[in-house]
Amino acid sequence: MTYFDKLRAAARSRRSQLCVGLDPDPDRIPGGASGAVRFCADLIRETADVACCYKPNSAFWEQYGPDGWHALFELRAAIPADIPMLLDAKRADVGSTMRAYARAVFDALGADACTVHAYHGADSLEEFTRYADRGVYVVARTSNPGAADLQHLQADGDPLYLAVARLAERVNENGNVGLVVGATSPRDVERMRVDTQLPFLLPGIGAQGGDLEASVRAAWNGDEASCLVNVSRGVMYADDPAAAARDYRDRINAVLEAVAS
Amino acid sequence: MTYFDKLRAAARSRRSQLCVGLDPDPDRIPGGASGAVRFCADLIRETADVACCYKPNSAFWEQYGPDGWHALFELRAAIPADIPMLLDAKRADVGSTMRAYARAVFDALGADACTVHAYHGADSLEEFTRYADRGVYVVARTSNPGAADLQHLQADGDPLYLAVARLAERVNENGNVGLVVGATSPRDVERMRVDTQLPFLLPGIGAQGGDLEASVRAAWNGDEASCLVNVSRGVMYADDPAAAARDYRDRINAVLEAVAS
Repeated sequence: MTYFDKLRAAARSRRSQLCVGLDPDPDRIPGGASGAVRFCADLIRETADVACCYKPNSAFWEQYGPDGWHALFELRAAIPADIPMLLDAKRADVGSTMRAYARAVFDALGADACTVHAYHGADSLEEFTRYADRGVYVVARTSNPGAADLQHLQADGDPLYLAVARLAERVNENGNVGLVVGATSPRDVERMRVDTQLPFLLPGIGAQGGDLEASVRAAWNGDEASCLVNVSRGVMYADDPAAAARDYRDRINAVLEAVAS
Repeated sequence: MTYFDKLRAAARSRRSQLCVGLDPDPDRIPGGASGAVRFCADLIRETADVACCYKPNSAFWEQYGPDGWHALFELRAAIPADIPMLLDAKRADVGSTMRAYARAVFDALGADACTVHAYHGADSLEEFTRYADRGVYVVARTSNPGAADLQHLQADGDPLYLAVARLAERVNENGNVGLVVGATSPRDVERMRVDTQLPFLLPGIGAQGGDLEASVRAAWNGDEASCLVNVSRGVMYADDPAAAARDYRDRINAVLEAVAS
């Protein structure tokens, strides 16, 4: 089963487009790396009926040093088999090095999907996309304020993020490529959806202040994989994470129902 | 002492601009992650009189799983105190996530410098550059064939890699920023040197077929930090790594002498 099919099945069975981010903050979670695993394993148990994907960001695990990398492998084992694990690692390097990163993420860790940067071009991306049963999200339009510094430059007449999206289309020979498009800029989500029907991963909802309603409306194209909405801090550090996750799922579904009617 | 001052001192004392890459290949080095550390520790002992910097690429360590991350910390301890360790990790994410990556690389591992991608913009880069005593190399022009896919797009009238170089200049408030410029395209090294006097890290020599002579001539501006030439496989897997490293150092110095005369 491919990543996107696994994602669609999880989304369908839970009637949810919600991806829960697993980004432990040592200032908020006691007990170091093992405390982080316990915290996230509890969170997974509480949210597994509403999350169709879990997305640990490698940075938050690496900050614990070698223990964090061990913890990430323990976390992998704590994610239910029918829910994909998407490692948000945003790797990018020359081909031979990307091959080593792909081994780290797909072979060693066993992640179902990973985020990557496109800056090195097609030969770099292909070291990930040739894992046909895994998903590869190419970072196109990020959710932070500095996104405009480079991504909005006019590259051969269009914003750079569209050139990145086209490169992602080009390396999609195995049908396993998606795009990362920040929910903080729904107009760019809309613009990107005009160009491509690749699945979108939408970060930036919650702590980053993204516009859930407008982004979901712009991203959704009827495919259950088209609009994967990530929330990290907004679920992890909520007083009641299960209730917060349900609430995000319901808000997303309300938009999809309004679109369908 | 800042990273660039440490690099200059090491370059001066060894009369060398050679950076040795530490990228273990499990197909060539037996014994898993601990075999990789032993191999690289031997290599360091054999080359410490001619290397002014050591550059492990994180991908090659991460492919061993959690053991690889441990090994990277052991490797850190094997590098002599007067030679900087540059972690080639090419990290890039939104600000809060970059803060976690900076903790991983600078606080936990204790690397002297790191490579990063600029795609997220200034607010992302600043999470690394605010470590004033550490070095931050922004990836501008890569050494692989796919580099042209995005980096040569005309962005507001210039190749994208020049826009990246300008962004790197903009975040150089602490004087700790350099650029990664592939030696496989000496004309782009030359073009970039017209625009900026930031220190260059030049990968792509050896297995990747870069042009050592032309790249060094284009990059050197009289500053001992201006032209750091990396060789990984060409030293690591040479029959006699110490002799190979000396040979690369001498070839670089021959160009510098020709330029000076």
